[in-house]
Amino acid sequence: MGYVLEHKDLLDLSLGAAILGTGGGGDPCIGRLMLEREMAGGRRVEIVRLGEVADGDHVIPTAMMGAPTCLIEKIPRGDECALSLRRLEAFLGVRATCTMPVEAGGMNAIVPLIVGAQLGLPVVDADGMGRAFPNLYQDTFHVHGVPGTPMAITGEHGDTVILTACDNFRMEWIARGVTIRMGGCAHTAEYPMDGPTARRSAIDGTLSVGLALGKAVRQANEKHGDPFDRLVGAVRDTPYRHGRVLWTGKVIEVYRRTTEGFAQGWVRIRDTEGPGETLDVLFQNENLVARAGARVLCSVPDLVCILDREDAAPITTEALRYGQHVKVVGIAAPPILRTPEALEVLGPRAFGVDLDFVPVEESAP
Amino acid sequence: MGYVLEHKDLLDLSLGAAILGTGGGGDPCIGRLMLEREMAGGRRVEIVRLGEVADGDHVIPTAMMGAPTCLIEKIPRGDECALSLRRLEAFLGVRATCTMPVEAGGMNAIVPLIVGAQLGLPVVDADGMGRAFPNLYQDTFHVHGVPGTPMAITGEHGDTVILTACDNFRMEWIARGVTIRMGGCAHTAEYPMDGPTARRSAIDGTLSVGLALGKAVRQANEKHGDPFDRLVGAVRDTPYRHGRVLWTGKVIEVYRRTTEGFAQGWVRIRDTEGPGETLDVLFQNENLVARAGARVLCSVPDLVCILDREDAAPITTEALRYGQHVKVVGIAAPPILRTPEALEVLGPRAFGVDLDFVPVEESAP
Repeated sequence: MGYVLEHKDLLDLSLGAAILGTGGGGDPCIGRLMLEREMAGGRRVEIVRLGEVADGDHVIPTAMMGAPTCLIEKIPRGDECALSLRRLEAFLGVRATCTMPVEAGGMNAIVPLIVGAQLGLPVVDADGMGRAFPNLYQDTFHVHGVPGTPMAITGEHGDTVILTACDNFRMEWIARGVTIRMGGCAHTAEYPMDGPTARRSAIDGTLSVGLALGKAVRQANEKHGDPFDRLVGAVRDTPYRHGRVLWTGKVIEVYRRTTEGFAQGWVRIRDTEGPGETLDVLFQNENLVARAGARVLCSVPDLVCILDREDAAPITTEALRYGQHVKVVGIAAPPILRTPEALEVLGPRAFGVDLDFVPVEESAP
Repeated sequence: MGYVLEHKDLLDLSLGAAILGTGGGGDPCIGRLMLEREMAGGRRVEIVRLGEVADGDHVIPTAMMGAPTCLIEKIPRGDECALSLRRLEAFLGVRATCTMPVEAGGMNAIVPLIVGAQLGLPVVDADGMGRAFPNLYQDTFHVHGVPGTPMAITGEHGDTVILTACDNFRMEWIARGVTIRMGGCAHTAEYPMDGPTARRSAIDGTLSVGLALGKAVRQANEKHGDPFDRLVGAVRDTPYRHGRVLWTGKVIEVYRRTTEGFAQGWVRIRDTEGPGETLDVLFQNENLVARAGARVLCSVPDLVCILDREDAAPITTEALRYGQHVKVVGIAAPPILRTPEALEVLGPRAFGVDLDFVPVEESAP
């Protein structure tokens, strides 16, 4: 059975979604404020379980796309994603019966809730990434052969593009070009699918996972407990199962460029509890690979989360800066992201990093 | 009354269209070969006069867009523009009753003829530029307030974008971004309009002008006459009225880059009949301004045409190279392109060149 999202859930969900965002997916704080405004205006958000999606349902997921570095400088008008959904409906000649996150990490966990509130549509507790990934084809929908287009892309001026691509790689390439022209971030409705396709290809319960992780960290902080112990414990109760603190240190260098429509670069973190070794975390919107010299501690599709050392507040890649004291937490990706087919588009080599994927629970501690 | 295009017209039309292309609009040779194939396959092209367009007609113009430097490296598959037209029809929920050039210069004079042959649609003898211009808003449709979108853009892989923009400047900006992602040239259906709008905003008879100019040059060459005399004479019988040889010389330097989706640069031509002065011609796909030191001999919207010194064969900006012996011909633009409203988007300042427009018939010879 589904449930109605309560106002008190919002802080937990945005905190947990930022953890699942692994540094990317956009800072959910902006999304939370937008959703609070909708709820303050009397609108409600109904969450439905993936198993409740009926055969006759039309699911139209919604998301923002672009560089988080642009998102924080360019606050959304607010109705862009709803406009994308409506225009995609008109193009397809169907009415959406629900929306869903494409990525349950970062801002994009919240975006479909805003759309759901605005349009009175239930939101499915599931997504295609179980975290955040930078490219549109990096999700379980694509891995299961679901076409991402027709998709709608709306910019803050109201310009809309309906893209029908030959495949999901061309979708990413062209949609990214449109997003760059729309100022580096844009608002989409994509991967329209029927109920059986959603049930078959989505990752179940990921909004609830975000909510649970956020709640665990908040409660630990309120009770002056160790938020990292609680986070790792909470992960154990989810399909992600395994989480572990990989590194404790201070940010000593950040290299970041907004280029090709992404925030790309790396951060160097010096160990403050050991001999002063350094950890390098490579990112493309999201953290991709955490490496200490030749030792790979965690890599995509597993989650590399850089969190404030005191309260485990997630630090997004656009907010990384010299002097931050952090802990880096590795979280195992759900099994659906670790199949050979999934690793082909989600593993290190899909990002041009010449490494085999090693599950975080097997990497040297 | 309209007429059916004959095979013998094709060489004349492509030659004349290349002259009207003022260095841009793409080399019509490729288009001519494509059209010859259609006609050899038994298809015919019916040309209708602008005055014959009925109130109930739906006119959907077709064109290629992009950098001519890309077009010559990437031959079209052949059905892209027809696909754009069909997809735009589906989006709009109308059936086109005819197509029309957006620009009657270069390849884009031929593109609608190919579409007309393929889809059995008459082609209106008119366009929005009376020549070629690089940007989508640089036409009389825009000057008359006609929205350019919804437009369809198709790439050679078959990806299609339907763009609905806030205004024609946003259309150009986003469509150009899509074109860049589609490999630097793409195929469009744009400025859909009804019959009265076409009659009000298009430039009448520009395909016929191209045909007449091409015929004059061809006949002069066949009879060993002076093709430049004949060209200037033929111009006099059109609404363009005034043409003149501005410069005779040798190309001594070309600077050309394919950037921002355009072929941009300049060519320097040393006078071979005088004291060795040089003429610089600035171009963005099309030739924009011809200047000898501080003396402006011709500038947009008037036509700067660089032609082979012997046979007046047009040299497109992507084909300019050291050592070519050329004559530069200036042709007055039709009056509709010289109104204050038109000059705002078509004059030198619209290209960032800090000059007032001086009609070529008034510039110092």
